[in-house]
Amino acid sequence: MARFDYDLACIGNAIVDVLAHADDARIARLKLNRGVMTLIDAARAEELYALMGPAIEISGGCAANTAAGAAALGGRAAFIGKVRDDQLGQVFTHDLRAQGVTFATPPSKAGPPTARSFIFVTPDAHRTMNTYLGACVELGPEDVDEAVVGKAGIVYFEGYLWDPPRAKDAMRKAARIVHAAGGRMAITLSDPFCVNRHRDEFRSLLGNEVDILFANEQELTSLYQTDFDSAMLKVVKDVEIAALTRSEHGSVAVRGDEVVHIAAESVKRVVDTTGAGDLYASGFLYGLTQNLPLEVCGRLGSICAAEIISHMGARPEDGLAELAAPVLKAAR
Amino acid sequence: MARFDYDLACIGNAIVDVLAHADDARIARLKLNRGVMTLIDAARAEELYALMGPAIEISGGCAANTAAGAAALGGRAAFIGKVRDDQLGQVFTHDLRAQGVTFATPPSKAGPPTARSFIFVTPDAHRTMNTYLGACVELGPEDVDEAVVGKAGIVYFEGYLWDPPRAKDAMRKAARIVHAAGGRMAITLSDPFCVNRHRDEFRSLLGNEVDILFANEQELTSLYQTDFDSAMLKVVKDVEIAALTRSEHGSVAVRGDEVVHIAAESVKRVVDTTGAGDLYASGFLYGLTQNLPLEVCGRLGSICAAEIISHMGARPEDGLAELAAPVLKAAR
Repeated sequence: MARFDYDLACIGNAIVDVLAHADDARIARLKLNRGVMTLIDAARAEELYALMGPAIEISGGCAANTAAGAAALGGRAAFIGKVRDDQLGQVFTHDLRAQGVTFATPPSKAGPPTARSFIFVTPDAHRTMNTYLGACVELGPEDVDEAVVGKAGIVYFEGYLWDPPRAKDAMRKAARIVHAAGGRMAITLSDPFCVNRHRDEFRSLLGNEVDILFANEQELTSLYQTDFDSAMLKVVKDVEIAALTRSEHGSVAVRGDEVVHIAAESVKRVVDTTGAGDLYASGFLYGLTQNLPLEVCGRLGSICAAEIISHMGARPEDGLAELAAPVLKAAR
Repeated sequence: MARFDYDLACIGNAIVDVLAHADDARIARLKLNRGVMTLIDAARAEELYALMGPAIEISGGCAANTAAGAAALGGRAAFIGKVRDDQLGQVFTHDLRAQGVTFATPPSKAGPPTARSFIFVTPDAHRTMNTYLGACVELGPEDVDEAVVGKAGIVYFEGYLWDPPRAKDAMRKAARIVHAAGGRMAITLSDPFCVNRHRDEFRSLLGNEVDILFANEQELTSLYQTDFDSAMLKVVKDVEIAALTRSEHGSVAVRGDEVVHIAAESVKRVVDTTGAGDLYASGFLYGLTQNLPLEVCGRLGSICAAEIISHMGARPEDGLAELAAPVLKAAR
C-alpha cells in the first residue's frame, strides 16, 4: 500500500486561458507588459478581449497545469482551486477531471465569474499574460480539504496565490496539515513581478513552511536580490530541494551539497512557451514522488517542458507518458 | 463604389467546437457515428462531455467558419446566427468579430445555452461531431437582417439549418430579399446524413432558390440518388455553379458546359479535417466575389482547405491571406 492517497496535490488559481497570436506592434499598441503576467480588473479584461484577435480556449492556471502534467505521466494528482458555477468553470473542471486529476473544490455560486487569462503569443513564441482573477479571489482556508492535502506526498502551490486576498491563509493551513501528515510542501515563485510583490513573505515561507522550491533565474535572483550563484548558495540553506530553471540553458537541481545540471530537451519548433515552468514542475515532482534521483527528476521536467512549448496552451497533449517512458524505464 | 456592402453573408448554426483527440476504441465505446455529424440532446451532451478527454474550445459552425475564412482572405463578410447571452456566446461572438466579420444577430436572453459540438479527432485526423444545437433552435425569420442580406453579393447558408425548426423559414425569407436585390444564394449540403434528412426540400431548393451549390461526393450522390457523374449532369441544370469536393482527389467546379478539375493542395501533415469543406467554400466564394475564373476559385478553396486541416479547429490561423496571395496576384 502506498503511504499517501495522492502523489501530488496542487493548489492554485483556477483559470481558463484565452490564447491568440499577436505581433509586437499589437503588444505595444495595447500597452502590455511583454513576457510576464499582469493582473487586470474586469473592465480591462473586457477592453483587452475586444482588442484581441480570434482566440482559442484551453484550461490553464499554473498549479492546475502542473497537476494535469503529473496525472498525464501516471501520477495520482489532485487540485484545489476556485471556479464559479458558469460555463468556463465547467470547462476548467472537465479538463482537469478528464486528465484524471481529482478536483472537488466547490465552485462559488455568486460573485465574479471563472478566472481567465488573456494570453498573447508573439512570433518568438513567448507569451504575455493578462489575468483577470475572477472567482479565484474566493479561495479560502475552508477550501483546503484535509482529505486531500493530508493524504498527499507533496503539496505544491503557486506564488500567484499571494495575489488574491485569502488564498495565503489557505496555504498556511495546508502547510500545517501536510507537515503533520509527514508530507512535503513545494512552491513555485510564479514570476519575477510576483516575487517583487511578495518578497518578504516568500523569504519567510522558504525558511519555514516550504521544502521544495521551483524558480527560474529571474525569480530566484529577485527573491534574494543577488546574482544566480550567490542565490543558489542561499537557497540550499532555506529549502531541502531547489529546482532552478534557466530556459534554453536547462536547469539546476540542488539538495544540500548535491548539485545536478540538466540540459534542456531539444524542441523541433517552439510554438508557445505558456506552461513551460508548470510542466517542468510536473515532471520533476512526479520523479520525486517516485523516489527517483534528482538528475532523473530534472530530465522528466525537461521532457514535459519540451512537450508543452511545442504546441499552443499549457495542458499536455496525448503522448506525454510515451515521451517520458524511456527515461522512467531506464531509471527504475 | 462596390455594388454590395458585403461580398458574402453567411447564415448558419452558431456553435463553439469542443475538440479532443480520441482513439478508435473510445469512438466505439461511446457509440459515436464515426466521421459524421450527429445531433444530440442536452442529456447526451452532458454524458458525452463527461466521457471526453481534456479538450480545447475553438469557435466553429460551418457557415461561420466560411465567413471567417472569407474575411481572413480580405473579403467583406457578415454572419447571421443565434447564440445565447452566455460565456460561450461571448466567445463565439468575439472570435467572429475579431476576424473582421460583421455579426449583429441579437443573442437570445432565455432558453437553451449557446450550441456546442463535441468533436472527437481520431488518429487518422478525421473528426466525429456530436452537436447540441442549444440556442440555434431560436433562429427565425426575424433574425434575417435586410441591411445585411439585401446588401450582400452572395448569401451562403448551410444545409444544417434544416435541422432547427424555424431556420428554414429564415432562409426562405433571405432568398427572397437576396434575389430581389440582385444577389446570389449559395448552399452547402453539410453532410450526407443531413441530405438524407431533408432530401426533397434540398432538391426543391436547388431547382428554385439556390444559385451556387457546395457538396462533397457523398452528399451529391445522396441528393440525386445516383453515381457521381450522373449527379453532375443533373446538378448543372439545377444551379448556376456547383463546386464538388472529393477530399484528397481535389474538386470539380461546373457552370453550364464548363467543367474545371482542381487538384487538392498537398499538406505536410493532416492534423484535423474539421472545417475542410467550410474553408474550401471560403476560398471558392471569395474568388467568385472577386469575379475570378472557376479554376482560380477552386484553387483558393483548396488552399484554404489545406490550411485548416493542418491544425486543430475550423477557424483559420494567422497567415491564410499570405498563402493565397500568389494565386490572387497571378489571377488579377
